[in-house]
Amino acid sequence: MPHSLLKFQPQKGLVVWLTGLSGSGKSTLAQALAAELTASGHAVYILDGDTLRRGLCADMGFNREDRAENIRRAGEVAALFADAGLVCIAAFVSPYLEDRARARRMVPPGQFIEVFINAPIALCEERDPKALYRKARADLIPFFTGISDPYEPPAPPDVEVKTGELNVAQSVNLILEHLRSRL
Amino acid sequence: MPHSLLKFQPQKGLVVWLTGLSGSGKSTLAQALAAELTASGHAVYILDGDTLRRGLCADMGFNREDRAENIRRAGEVAALFADAGLVCIAAFVSPYLEDRARARRMVPPGQFIEVFINAPIALCEERDPKALYRKARADLIPFFTGISDPYEPPAPPDVEVKTGELNVAQSVNLILEHLRSRL
Repeated sequence: MPHSLLKFQPQKGLVVWLTGLSGSGKSTLAQALAAELTASGHAVYILDGDTLRRGLCADMGFNREDRAENIRRAGEVAALFADAGLVCIAAFVSPYLEDRARARRMVPPGQFIEVFINAPIALCEERDPKALYRKARADLIPFFTGISDPYEPPAPPDVEVKTGELNVAQSVNLILEHLRSRL
Repeated sequence: MPHSLLKFQPQKGLVVWLTGLSGSGKSTLAQALAAELTASGHAVYILDGDTLRRGLCADMGFNREDRAENIRRAGEVAALFADAGLVCIAAFVSPYLEDRARARRMVPPGQFIEVFINAPIALCEERDPKALYRKARADLIPFFTGISDPYEPPAPPDVEVKTGELNVAQSVNLILEHLRSRL
């Protein structure tokens, strides 16, 4: 656990971990949630897979071992941000229960909230915001979660958001309800 | 480069990178500098070698390759904190010019300040706050910077602090003088 350090706001750090398939809505909800929290005076930072894979995890691929190491590093960085007193919104596919459980253990008890961004894969594939499903179906991407690689849903998550049934505002409110007692 | 994200204070992020031998005073100055900056309303977080080596870099040793990867990760994390709008004080022996130059390139121009914490090795060894020199002299620690591994001083650093000649307050003031125009 990182040692405690100077906090510039009397707020307790949190990790809000968004897990779900590509296209489930993690990035959209991360941005919308960050906007709400910031508007109410909280210090927020978003960590996501795309950002880390361009930098800290640029040496990692998508096989089982690399996915584990990718999420281990993401969890460690999220824990540092929480230690700094920020609400760290971590948006990662993070398909494996074991990897997410380890990320949770890096943060003090009660400061890790696992949010399952749950959308049917058919919907995710229809949205396909980064055209990744199209490439995966054409066998251009190996180890693609939901197509050629497993996704292990949380059992149970702290919060479940069905983005096929709720709009963005409703989804954010659902998450905020669970955060309020922790902030 | 990490994408820009919500900042909770209208402050520009910075990386203040403290490099120097073990026992040169990096941790002491990091804490004292953080206290000063926090008192004047800045958001600050300290990253140091001991913390990262217990978590994010727990898989790294001290040979040349591992030192490079350790500092690469430290640089990436420091860049994320600067992107979040914090002043990230990064205190790492970081003995190699090349590794520090790479860390600098991870941060937008002008937002990385390299501070050489310069103390004669005899003084560092006399202080020996973690009893590491004693162990290194007894051949219990391989690759120990200054004893059995090189230290490449900055040429030139943005700031040089001779901790054998200045006290803590004087040292902090010297660093703050260089930071003021950047904050």
